[in-house]
Amino acid sequence: MTIHYPNGARFSPSQQPNKKLKLTTYGGRGMTLEQELNESNQYYLANDVAVIHKKPTPIQIVKVDYPKRSAAVIREAYFRQASTTDYNGIYRGRYIDFDAKETQETTRFPLDNFHKHQIEHMRSCLKQGGICFGLVKFVKLDQLYLLKATDLISYWDHQDTGRKSIPLKVFDDIALPIHYRLNPIIPYLDAVDHLI
Amino acid sequence: MTIHYPNGARFSPSQQPNKKLKLTTYGGRGMTLEQELNESNQYYLANDVAVIHKKPTPIQIVKVDYPKRSAAVIREAYFRQASTTDYNGIYRGRYIDFDAKETQETTRFPLDNFHKHQIEHMRSCLKQGGICFGLVKFVKLDQLYLLKATDLISYWDHQDTGRKSIPLKVFDDIALPIHYRLNPIIPYLDAVDHLI
Repeated sequence: MTIHYPNGARFSPSQQPNKKLKLTTYGGRGMTLEQELNESNQYYLANDVAVIHKKPTPIQIVKVDYPKRSAAVIREAYFRQASTTDYNGIYRGRYIDFDAKETQETTRFPLDNFHKHQIEHMRSCLKQGGICFGLVKFVKLDQLYLLKATDLISYWDHQDTGRKSIPLKVFDDIALPIHYRLNPIIPYLDAVDHLI
Repeated sequence: MTIHYPNGARFSPSQQPNKKLKLTTYGGRGMTLEQELNESNQYYLANDVAVIHKKPTPIQIVKVDYPKRSAAVIREAYFRQASTTDYNGIYRGRYIDFDAKETQETTRFPLDNFHKHQIEHMRSCLKQGGICFGLVKFVKLDQLYLLKATDLISYWDHQDTGRKSIPLKVFDDIALPIHYRLNPIIPYLDAVDHLI
């Protein structure tokens, strides 16, 4: 049965205020994973816990205008692919390096969410003794995991002969779950403590 | 006495080809300090010595066009001030963080080459046990130094009562000189070895 509002508009369960309320209650408050991480990193910085920042998006600038008496305006530029992961910094004297990925899938994480450059970058950082990982969020399940770079790379390297995604079940087995909290929203350094 | 070229143009010693030749011979080969460092970092990366990258310039994007069948074009954007230093990464298991500055001065390095944000960022990284410094190039002297963040911050904090620049003599006394080489062009990690 279709239900209508008094004004004749069709009622749709997906537009229920409750749904928004749920998002408000569970961590994210409608923010993207990037926003949640930026807030968490600001919390960590303000409390002298760690210094971790997201790198700016790399841009190829082609044309810049310099208007008189005002700031330079970039008039033509293109997005470039990053040659590293997005996040790095220092925590408890250790070099931290990771990337954050969201997937709409509910049973598996497709490996093509990562780029070859990012995997190679993690390999190099591991060789130097860095702590590297992926933060993977299954958006529809509202579940977040820290996946060690060694595990990620192991799946990555077997894509040709094996599967091109990591099953959710594997995350439950070998990744570290991260539960949303108030401060910081994403307490991922608690999971990092298990890697040190 | 003013000397003229046969075509009547005035001869200026600063335009002598020899001057350019000198730049070619000594290290830089006409590159900016940023280019020299990028090449050096690529050398270090390719030889598994260290993983250190320059962060992209932060840009505030206002308008993006998405033309059919071609890449997204940024049509309006502005340069933002960075909240961290430009370079970071990992070397021998240690977190490395620094900024590079060029000055045209020949007797002193004006402290306003650094921004407050960059100094605060270095302070935070030092607290976490990171290795932080400034790479300062006196362009006209073709001299390059690694200045420890602790020394830089000490001068920074005494600007109100003391001087607003660091004399070249102080660099000779307390900073580590770096001499241009072939590979890498700027072997700054040799100087970092003295800080570890």
